[in-house]
Amino acid sequence: MKQSKEICNPYNASKKIYLEGKIHDIKVGMREVTLTDTVENGIRRSNGTTRLYDTSGVYTDPDAKIDLKQGLPRFREAWLNKREDLVRLTDFTSVYSKSRLNDPELEPFRFKVKHLPFKAKQGCRITQMALAKAGIITPEMEYVAIRENLSTDTKEGSYITPEFVRQEVAAGRAVIPANPNHPEAEPMIIGNKFLVKINTNIGNSALSSDIEQEVEKSVWSSRWGGDTLMDLSTGKHIHETREWIIRNCPVPMGSVPIYQALEKVDGKAEELSWEIFKDTLIEQCEQGVDYFTIHAGLLQKHIPLAAKRLTGIVSRGGSIMAKWMTAHKQENFLYTHFDQICEILAQYDVAVSIGDGLRPGSIFDANDQAQFGELETMGELTETAWKNDVQVLIEGPGHVPMNKIKENMEKQMELCHNAPFYTLGPITTDIAPGYDHITSAIGAAMIGWYGTAMLCYVTPKEHLALPNKEDVRNGIMAYKIAAHAADLAKGHPSAMERDIALSKARFEFRWLDQFNLSLDPERAREYYGAEKIHGTPFCTMCGPNFCAMRISREVSGLETME
Amino acid sequence: MKQSKEICNPYNASKKIYLEGKIHDIKVGMREVTLTDTVENGIRRSNGTTRLYDTSGVYTDPDAKIDLKQGLPRFREAWLNKREDLVRLTDFTSVYSKSRLNDPELEPFRFKVKHLPFKAKQGCRITQMALAKAGIITPEMEYVAIRENLSTDTKEGSYITPEFVRQEVAAGRAVIPANPNHPEAEPMIIGNKFLVKINTNIGNSALSSDIEQEVEKSVWSSRWGGDTLMDLSTGKHIHETREWIIRNCPVPMGSVPIYQALEKVDGKAEELSWEIFKDTLIEQCEQGVDYFTIHAGLLQKHIPLAAKRLTGIVSRGGSIMAKWMTAHKQENFLYTHFDQICEILAQYDVAVSIGDGLRPGSIFDANDQAQFGELETMGELTETAWKNDVQVLIEGPGHVPMNKIKENMEKQMELCHNAPFYTLGPITTDIAPGYDHITSAIGAAMIGWYGTAMLCYVTPKEHLALPNKEDVRNGIMAYKIAAHAADLAKGHPSAMERDIALSKARFEFRWLDQFNLSLDPERAREYYGAEKIHGTPFCTMCGPNFCAMRISREVSGLETME
Repeated sequence: MKQSKEICNPYNASKKIYLEGKIHDIKVGMREVTLTDTVENGIRRSNGTTRLYDTSGVYTDPDAKIDLKQGLPRFREAWLNKREDLVRLTDFTSVYSKSRLNDPELEPFRFKVKHLPFKAKQGCRITQMALAKAGIITPEMEYVAIRENLSTDTKEGSYITPEFVRQEVAAGRAVIPANPNHPEAEPMIIGNKFLVKINTNIGNSALSSDIEQEVEKSVWSSRWGGDTLMDLSTGKHIHETREWIIRNCPVPMGSVPIYQALEKVDGKAEELSWEIFKDTLIEQCEQGVDYFTIHAGLLQKHIPLAAKRLTGIVSRGGSIMAKWMTAHKQENFLYTHFDQICEILAQYDVAVSIGDGLRPGSIFDANDQAQFGELETMGELTETAWKNDVQVLIEGPGHVPMNKIKENMEKQMELCHNAPFYTLGPITTDIAPGYDHITSAIGAAMIGWYGTAMLCYVTPKEHLALPNKEDVRNGIMAYKIAAHAADLAKGHPSAMERDIALSKARFEFRWLDQFNLSLDPERAREYYGAEKIHGTPFCTMCGPNFCAMRISREVSGLETME
Repeated sequence: MKQSKEICNPYNASKKIYLEGKIHDIKVGMREVTLTDTVENGIRRSNGTTRLYDTSGVYTDPDAKIDLKQGLPRFREAWLNKREDLVRLTDFTSVYSKSRLNDPELEPFRFKVKHLPFKAKQGCRITQMALAKAGIITPEMEYVAIRENLSTDTKEGSYITPEFVRQEVAAGRAVIPANPNHPEAEPMIIGNKFLVKINTNIGNSALSSDIEQEVEKSVWSSRWGGDTLMDLSTGKHIHETREWIIRNCPVPMGSVPIYQALEKVDGKAEELSWEIFKDTLIEQCEQGVDYFTIHAGLLQKHIPLAAKRLTGIVSRGGSIMAKWMTAHKQENFLYTHFDQICEILAQYDVAVSIGDGLRPGSIFDANDQAQFGELETMGELTETAWKNDVQVLIEGPGHVPMNKIKENMEKQMELCHNAPFYTLGPITTDIAPGYDHITSAIGAAMIGWYGTAMLCYVTPKEHLALPNKEDVRNGIMAYKIAAHAADLAKGHPSAMERDIALSKARFEFRWLDQFNLSLDPERAREYYGAEKIHGTPFCTMCGPNFCAMRISREVSGLETME
C-alpha cells in the first residue's frame, strides 16, 4: 500500500484545531486559516483567522502519524467503551466474513489489523435515533452541533444546539450515520436544517481499478470536501477493498449490499436470495459500513410502469431487483423482509438509505408514475424503519428538468414524513455527457435549497466511464459549490462568513487569502499564475488600467497596495 | 493570419442544411445530424436525422471557402441592397477611423479588404424595431422564426411565427441585433419567448493576447455554441483587432465603447469627454458592431451607495464613469447625452445594452440599494431608446445567492418594461475562484428559466486571468447547459427533441449517436475511450454485469446489440 504525499499534506496557511465539548469529553476537528493583514492608507489591520468546516480528518494534521496499513486512529472507541448498551463480539458473525478471513489466497489483499465488532447488547436500543428519542444527547450529537457552528458556543443567532440536534434525530428529520464499527469516522449530520452535505462514490468495476487506487481516491475525496463516501465496488475482492477503505476513512461510509450479493452469485440476479443478502448485511455491518442503500421500494406493480419509459430502469439496484422479481414472479424480497433488515441494522446503528430504483434516467421520464409510485412505498418503509429506531435517508433522482424539481422535494417530504432527502443531482438536461457534473450541479443546488439534505455527486465521466482522481476532484468541486450555494440560500448560520472573508480579501487584493479561503486553493493559484502572487493589485483578466476594483477603491479614497 | 484547421472542420456525422424562406429570399443554415439505425430483436429501424440550432456559420460547411484574410461571405448585403431606407457612404465618418486607415504604421495589423458603411437615409427609421412597429416582417424576422423552429413551417404547437417575432420586436420584448455593417452575421433573436442565448467575451488586455489569437477565439466561440460575442479588448490596436473579428464573425458582435475611448485618453478616466465618446460610437457603428454596452444608468447619487459596499464597483465601465463623475463633479455624460447616443445608434440599427455599472461583486452586496437604484434609471433610459426605435437589452448581475435571483428578474421586468434581460451569471457563491463557470451556471440556469433572454458566460478563469481557448470552451459548455436547461424548464417548442434523441440513443447503446448529439462530442468520446466505441453495450462505469440499462432492457424483453 503506497501512501501518496498528496493526500497527507496540510492545507496552506491552515492549522488543524480541536474544540472541546462541554457535555462530553470530545474534540472536534476543524480547519483554521490564518489571514494576512490589510494595509490601507498607511494603517495595518489584522484579519485574524477564519474557521472552516473540515472533512479531511487527521490527514491534514501534521501531528498525526498516518499509516494506511494500520488505519486511522479509532478515536470514537473511547466513547463506545463507556457505553453499557454495546458488547464486543469474540468473532465475526457472517459466514462469508469468516471464510474470507480464513482464505490464505487472500493474504496479499487483506488489511492486516483485525478489529472485533461491536453490537447491541441483547434487548438494547442503541441507535442515535433510539437514544435521541430517550432524551439522551450523545457525544456524536454534541460533536455535530459544535462542527456545524464552527464553535463550542452555539453561534449568536444560530438555532443549532446539541439539544436541537437531538430533537431532529429523534423526529427522523436528521441522521447521524455512526456505526460503532467505524470508530475512525468523525460524526456528521444529514438533515435539512444543517449544512447541505455531499456524498462521493468511488469503487472499482470488473473492468478497472485496484485496492490501492480506491483507498487513495477515498482519502482524496474527503480531502476535497466529501462528507460521506459510498464504495460501489463491483469487481473482485469487494470485501477486502471495503476493509481497507473503512479503516482509512475519516467520513461515514455507505454501500449497496446487493452489489456484493450479486457478485456472490456470479452476476446472476435470479440466483439472489434473502439468505445471501442477509449474510452480506451482517458482514458489512460488522466491517463498519455506516449506511446501506437498499432498493426495497420497487415492487412488482411498478415494473410495467417502467416499461413505458424512454430509458427504463437506470438504477443498478433497481434493475437487479426487477430482474429477480420477473424471474421469480414474486414480490421484491427486500420489501418482504424489510422488518428483518431493520432488526439487523438496528443492532449496529447502520442507517438505511432507501434506494430509488425507479429514478428517471432521462428528462422525458422525470416525475412519472413509476417514480412517484415507488416514492409512496418508500414512505411506508420509512415508518417501518423508524419503528425499529433505524435512521432513514430517502434517495432521489436522477434526471429532472428545473421546472419539475420542486415537486420532487414536496412529494418526498409529504410521502416520506420529512426523512432527509438524498439526491443524485438531479441532472437538468441529457445533452451534455462529459459535463454532467455541471448539468447536475444546477439541479443539486436548487434541490438543496428546497430542502435536500445530502447531494450525491456526479463526475464529468458520468454515463461514460469510471472517474479517476481528477474527475473525483472536479465532481466534488461542483457539488461543494452546489451545497454551499444552497446553504447561502437557506441562510445556514455558518454559511455566509466564508463568502464575506473571501470577497473582502478580493477587494483588498489579498491574493493569498483569496486562494486559501477558496474551495480549491491549488486550482485558483494555478490559474492566477504563480509568479504574480505577491502584491499585484490587478490580474491579467483586466490589466491595471481596467481593474474596476482598483478604480472603485480610488473613487472611495482607498490606497491600493502595490 | 494563420487559419487553424480546428475551427473549420465540419461537425461529425453532420451536414449543413439551408432552409428557404417563404416570405423572403433567404436561406437559414442549420445542422443536421444523421443517426444510426436501431437494431432490436432482429428488426432494423431508421432513426432518421435530427436538426440542431447551429451558431457556427459557414465554418462548418465544407462547401464554403474560408479565408480569414477575405472575411466571411457578406450574404446579408443582398437583403440590404434591396432596401430603400439605407444609403452606402462614400467614406467613413469617424475622425479616428480615418486616421487609423491612413496610418502607414498600422499596415501590418490592418484587415485589407475595405467595406464602406451603410447608414440610414436621411429621415428614415431603419431599425428592426422601427420596421416591426410599421408592421413589416423583415428577412431577419423570418430568418429567426425558421431558426428557432428548426423548420420552415412553424412547428406544431409552436407559437413562434414570423408575425409573432415582429410583434415581440415591436413591443421591445425581443431584440434582433443586426447592424447593416455586419452583413456576415446570421440573424438571431434575444427575448424571453425564444431560446435562451449565450454571449461569450473575448478580447485582449494590455498584458496579453494578439489579433490572431482573438480571431481564432471568436470563431472558436461560435463553433462551440456562442450566440453572440463581445470584444472587450483594452490593449493596443483595438480598432484593427475589432475589424478582423467582425469580418470573420458569424454571430452578432457587441462591444463596450468606453473601453476604447479610455485608451484614446491613455487610461485617464477624467479626460474622457462626450466628443471622444461620440466619435468612438460612430467609428464602431460603421465597423459593424451590433450592440453597445453603455453605462448610462449609473448616476452621481448612486456613488455614495456603492461606497458602503463590501466590494464597491466591480464593473469596469461603472468604475470608469464613477471616477469621471467624481473628478468633474458632474452627472454621467452618458446619461446626459443618452438622447444623442440613441440618435446615432438608430442610424445604424445598433442595439443598446444598458450596462449595470453597479452590479454586485459579492454575495454580500446582492440586491442592494445601489443595484436597484441604478436599475430604476435603466428603466427610464429604456423608454428614451424606444422613442428613438433603438432596440434595448438590460444588463444584470453579477453575484447573487439563489434566494435573491427571482427578485432580480421581477424588478427588471417591472422597472424596464419587459426589455430583454442579459445577465452575467449570476454567480451564486464567492468561494470557488477557478470554478466560476459552475458557480454562475447555477444562477444562469435559474434566471434563464425565470425569464432572462441572454446569459453572458463566465469562464473558469473569472476573477483570476484572461481565458485561453480551452477556458472559452469550458465556459461555453457551462452556459449552453444553463441555457438549454432553462429552455427545457420554460417549455420552448424546440428544446425537448434533442434530449429525447440523445436519451433514446443512450438506452439503445448507440454510442456514436450519443456523442454526435451531445454539446461536446469530442469530450464525450474522449472520456468514453476511443477504442470502445463500436457496439459495446455497457461502459466502464458499471461494467457488463452492473449495467442497469442492459438489465432493464432484458426485463422488457429487448435484445441488446453486442
